[in-house]
Amino acid sequence: MRYKLEISYDGTNYSGFQIQPNKDTIQKRLEDAMMHVYRDEIDIVASGRTDAGVSAICQVCHFDTECNVDTRRDVGYLNSILPENIRVLSISEASVDFHARKSAKNKTYIYNFYTGREIPVYDKFATNIGYNLDIEKMKEACRYIQGEHDFTAFCASNTAVVDKVRIVYDIKIIDLGENLYRMEITGNGFLYNMVRIIMGTLVSVGMGKIRPEDIVQIIESKNRANSGKTMPAKGLVLKKVIYSNV
Amino acid sequence: MRYKLEISYDGTNYSGFQIQPNKDTIQKRLEDAMMHVYRDEIDIVASGRTDAGVSAICQVCHFDTECNVDTRRDVGYLNSILPENIRVLSISEASVDFHARKSAKNKTYIYNFYTGREIPVYDKFATNIGYNLDIEKMKEACRYIQGEHDFTAFCASNTAVVDKVRIVYDIKIIDLGENLYRMEITGNGFLYNMVRIIMGTLVSVGMGKIRPEDIVQIIESKNRANSGKTMPAKGLVLKKVIYSNV
Repeated sequence: MRYKLEISYDGTNYSGFQIQPNKDTIQKRLEDAMMHVYRDEIDIVASGRTDAGVSAICQVCHFDTECNVDTRRDVGYLNSILPENIRVLSISEASVDFHARKSAKNKTYIYNFYTGREIPVYDKFATNIGYNLDIEKMKEACRYIQGEHDFTAFCASNTAVVDKVRIVYDIKIIDLGENLYRMEITGNGFLYNMVRIIMGTLVSVGMGKIRPEDIVQIIESKNRANSGKTMPAKGLVLKKVIYSNV
Repeated sequence: MRYKLEISYDGTNYSGFQIQPNKDTIQKRLEDAMMHVYRDEIDIVASGRTDAGVSAICQVCHFDTECNVDTRRDVGYLNSILPENIRVLSISEASVDFHARKSAKNKTYIYNFYTGREIPVYDKFATNIGYNLDIEKMKEACRYIQGEHDFTAFCASNTAVVDKVRIVYDIKIIDLGENLYRMEITGNGFLYNMVRIIMGTLVSVGMGKIRPEDIVQIIESKNRANSGKTMPAKGLVLKKVIYSNV
């Protein structure tokens, strides 16, 4: 039997999603909890890994087991074993065709950031840019990022992926008041560090280092050296994974 | 000389603002840092105390000292001594007439909350209501809270304050997406636990226990037993203090 698993986590103190030797990861915690509940070595496949320090409002996974899974009761059972910063939201039966990564159509990420003076309350979930930013110019820059592009310039240079064409369906910056902002981006897939590099490039625009329309040349250059900094993991949150076009 | 001090803090791990024996408080940390910098016993007066676990985006204080204060340099000096969850935002010279509490005209508080399933990322700064709420009904209820009223029904019953008439200039609920909401309230003053009890009463409305228009009777009753629960400190943030009508 295949099951779909929805989870939510605060990734701050974890070395990312994926299991690595001698590291505390989300996947390890989940598989340990599964071992406890099902007495079975269950492999959990996520829609994608999240890096160290990255959180998820709703990450989607799948797993296969022949054990007896009670999709309602086991949510509570797993949560009683898991640390409070990892929560199982739901377990449901899935078809064998369902694959948490391969079946994913779109994903939405959030990047929380704030400008100006340091605010400790914001530091819990957002990156402090320090400078004041021209948010209107950043919003203008978003329009050049939207669409289908080869995002090589916005991908960590050490990536093995060959096809770097992705579609960004929507990218926007939402003003949450008092210098706090949220960048929200939805696409059909994201290259390694792509959201963090896009955010860094938007910050370059906001600081006046580059103009919004310069995004066009940066994309065309396919050169990582032309885009902005890779922004810190803090502030990055996987919001949701969409599996159908509904 | 009198000085105005703007500070920002994450109150999660403190026993509130005000100094108390054997407790770790914001005021104690500030006065200790002041002692280090100025070698003087400086009393810090805030616009109001915040309770244990309550944070501030911008709290305003004043202090008097005959020491030599460098309003620019000392911000960094104090911040190098203070823990990272307490930040001095600014120090400025103030007139002797300025009093952080008595001169305050309005204050704005935020209450961060979310509905539905538990989301660890939100737990860092928002209260989980658990239930799904009828937010439109809560917005309707806000209209009955706005205005000048005797807020006895929304005040912790053990308060010594006699005059419980306050003006709520503005109260609104902002939808931040994905079940996350922010209640924002501006008034000319707040009674003890008033924001947390107003929030608890709005939750009662959102859960359908009471109707929006029932707020009218609750206010008129001047009876704490008729209003909602005192919501947890987590989620409550002092946003700003306004000293002029500008």
